[in-house]
Amino acid sequence: MAFSFIVRKQDKKTLARLGVITTPHGTIETPAFVPVGTQASVKSLSPDELDTLGVRLFFVNTYHAYLRPGLSVMNKFGGLHKFMGWPGPIITDSGGFQVFSLARPKYTPQDRGEDRPSLVKISEDGVEFRSHWDGSIHMFTAESSMRWQWELGSDIHIAFDDCTSYPATHAQAQKSMERTHRWALRSVLEHKRLGKAYTKRNKPYQALYGVIQGSVYEDLRVASAMFVRGLDVDGIAIGGVSVGETKTEMRDVLSWVSPYLPADKPRHLLGVGEIDDIFTLIEHGMDTFDCVQPTRLARMGRLYVTKGKTHEIDITKKTWEKDTKPIEPGCTCYTCVHFSRSYLHHLFRVRELLAYRLATIHNIHFINTLVLDIRKAIKNGVFLEMKHAWLYNK
Amino acid sequence: MAFSFIVRKQDKKTLARLGVITTPHGTIETPAFVPVGTQASVKSLSPDELDTLGVRLFFVNTYHAYLRPGLSVMNKFGGLHKFMGWPGPIITDSGGFQVFSLARPKYTPQDRGEDRPSLVKISEDGVEFRSHWDGSIHMFTAESSMRWQWELGSDIHIAFDDCTSYPATHAQAQKSMERTHRWALRSVLEHKRLGKAYTKRNKPYQALYGVIQGSVYEDLRVASAMFVRGLDVDGIAIGGVSVGETKTEMRDVLSWVSPYLPADKPRHLLGVGEIDDIFTLIEHGMDTFDCVQPTRLARMGRLYVTKGKTHEIDITKKTWEKDTKPIEPGCTCYTCVHFSRSYLHHLFRVRELLAYRLATIHNIHFINTLVLDIRKAIKNGVFLEMKHAWLYNK
Repeated sequence: MAFSFIVRKQDKKTLARLGVITTPHGTIETPAFVPVGTQASVKSLSPDELDTLGVRLFFVNTYHAYLRPGLSVMNKFGGLHKFMGWPGPIITDSGGFQVFSLARPKYTPQDRGEDRPSLVKISEDGVEFRSHWDGSIHMFTAESSMRWQWELGSDIHIAFDDCTSYPATHAQAQKSMERTHRWALRSVLEHKRLGKAYTKRNKPYQALYGVIQGSVYEDLRVASAMFVRGLDVDGIAIGGVSVGETKTEMRDVLSWVSPYLPADKPRHLLGVGEIDDIFTLIEHGMDTFDCVQPTRLARMGRLYVTKGKTHEIDITKKTWEKDTKPIEPGCTCYTCVHFSRSYLHHLFRVRELLAYRLATIHNIHFINTLVLDIRKAIKNGVFLEMKHAWLYNK
Repeated sequence: MAFSFIVRKQDKKTLARLGVITTPHGTIETPAFVPVGTQASVKSLSPDELDTLGVRLFFVNTYHAYLRPGLSVMNKFGGLHKFMGWPGPIITDSGGFQVFSLARPKYTPQDRGEDRPSLVKISEDGVEFRSHWDGSIHMFTAESSMRWQWELGSDIHIAFDDCTSYPATHAQAQKSMERTHRWALRSVLEHKRLGKAYTKRNKPYQALYGVIQGSVYEDLRVASAMFVRGLDVDGIAIGGVSVGETKTEMRDVLSWVSPYLPADKPRHLLGVGEIDDIFTLIEHGMDTFDCVQPTRLARMGRLYVTKGKTHEIDITKKTWEKDTKPIEPGCTCYTCVHFSRSYLHHLFRVRELLAYRLATIHNIHFINTLVLDIRKAIKNGVFLEMKHAWLYNK
């Protein structure tokens, strides 16, 4: 079995830890930030740039890859690695989150507590939905999600889950969680069955993570953690934390579930990664976390800097028009070494394609450097000190 | 004087020649294709990618740089080189072409023979126009064009010209050409005056090319060539060939003017560069030529290939959906080495930013490789044979 996880060091004062995930396509030192290549591309960047930036794990959305390019193309290439030209580890989600967020209309305050609109039909079997591209009808089930992830060939799969809407009543969250658990059991069975078939065809082993749901309710989150802990899976994912919860709620969820997570399995937090969230989630023992935030902000011209409350500057503002300094003085990313705030301001102002790329390089470099510094701090036993220095003493 | 041109080899059967242009920012082996960075960026590419692709000369439009980022920003950086992070040679145009093409409405058939619409006011002094960004009013004259090009710090400037509209009557073309000649004399005087002032401030020498106009009329083109030949300039540019003339008309213009061009000065053809034009213009003794065509086509998904009448494929077509081959088998560009037609098709289909960049890399690599092969053929005395083999024997 070519998937493993070892904890190299456990922080003494917090749940933060250093680890190494090994997959058939390479290893990932943890904690690690995982950029999202929604449509089989981390927007504007080439795979070799991601590698240079220190990215080791690449997140792709099963929903998007399933619709375009589609599984027949995937089959032709034997999976995402060859298709995208990315030889390193890949993680895919179950498709559930996109089905609920893209295939249904946005929630309005009136939606609170109501059932989901009819664009998505949920049954015990799975979810029927319309493609956001052409309105064609598709069905995702635990079994098809597993099969599609095997076809995509990702190194880490996520069990099919019912992504609880936010906000949700306790009853709704419980119903959604219980369904997630039943789908998890079906996912594990199907994953193992397919694993035997695919490995006979010389596909390398692909790992499966179970998903904890339960919204913002402590009893549900604990029950879900206990349930997923009991599953025969390679790792644990925590879902539903990005769909609307506040930072306090995220912290609460992590503190509720953390005590119940097995120490020897890697933990992935789905869809979170604002700069100050990073310390919180690592402090609660998360090993990997994906988020579109750093790349999305970059394309809006919002660039990370160490100083300031928000840890970002808006490069589109006129303030930067004649500023010859790099985004963050001292930053060693390609963008900061070669270009000024003034040039970036200009590129954004006249909407040049290079703008989005140079900005994305900086934001990923920034977050990866921060996570690397956190790994060093954990190694040296000074995680909390480093966190306080970074967040408050500037 | 840090600008020079030497002819290394003159082809025996045609006017094609090998040369080297030396500028304060480096040398350019000719013939050479010059990509256009309209707004101080070759769309989607970084300067180091251009360098890797073998680009030695970078074309920037004075009109665009003047409006955005503007000269006060340029002044802060001491010119385009530092602003763009491009240490190599730069050529700028006079601004005339953009003033006429961007600041006025598109021509319709009814415009034939009419005077230019009032968005642009032409007088003997220069051209008054409205910015295409915000409608603000600006004035370009021979003197201001020279000053702005000195501020941009390009290695090669172009004299301010009246870009003749197309089609134009003989009388209109003559009037426009004569004005171009008077503006050329003013450009030379101002360029020299400013040169003394700027070199005192330790700016390196910046060269000036005169511009030949005359539309599609042989007598005017010859008269213009004779006139520009007599100017005290470092090189010769041929203008007005891209504004609407057919391929036959371009060939005619080049064959009319070529005999009158001094052998010892470099020649630049403004705004031409379809694949089969390249042989024509090199055959007529052109040394450098800029064109937005390879990069613009790339962003539309039209990618160069050797075979086929049009020398391009449209990667957005469904034909390529499952094609695992590179754009051009055997091509050594980054895109072809790493990615399939299928992946490029996918990126274009879902409008991923990476699409435009990978396509641009391929098209510039393709055209630069072709020009490199042409240089080798000239060196080996087989230019015409190579041309026929490439264009007709496939």
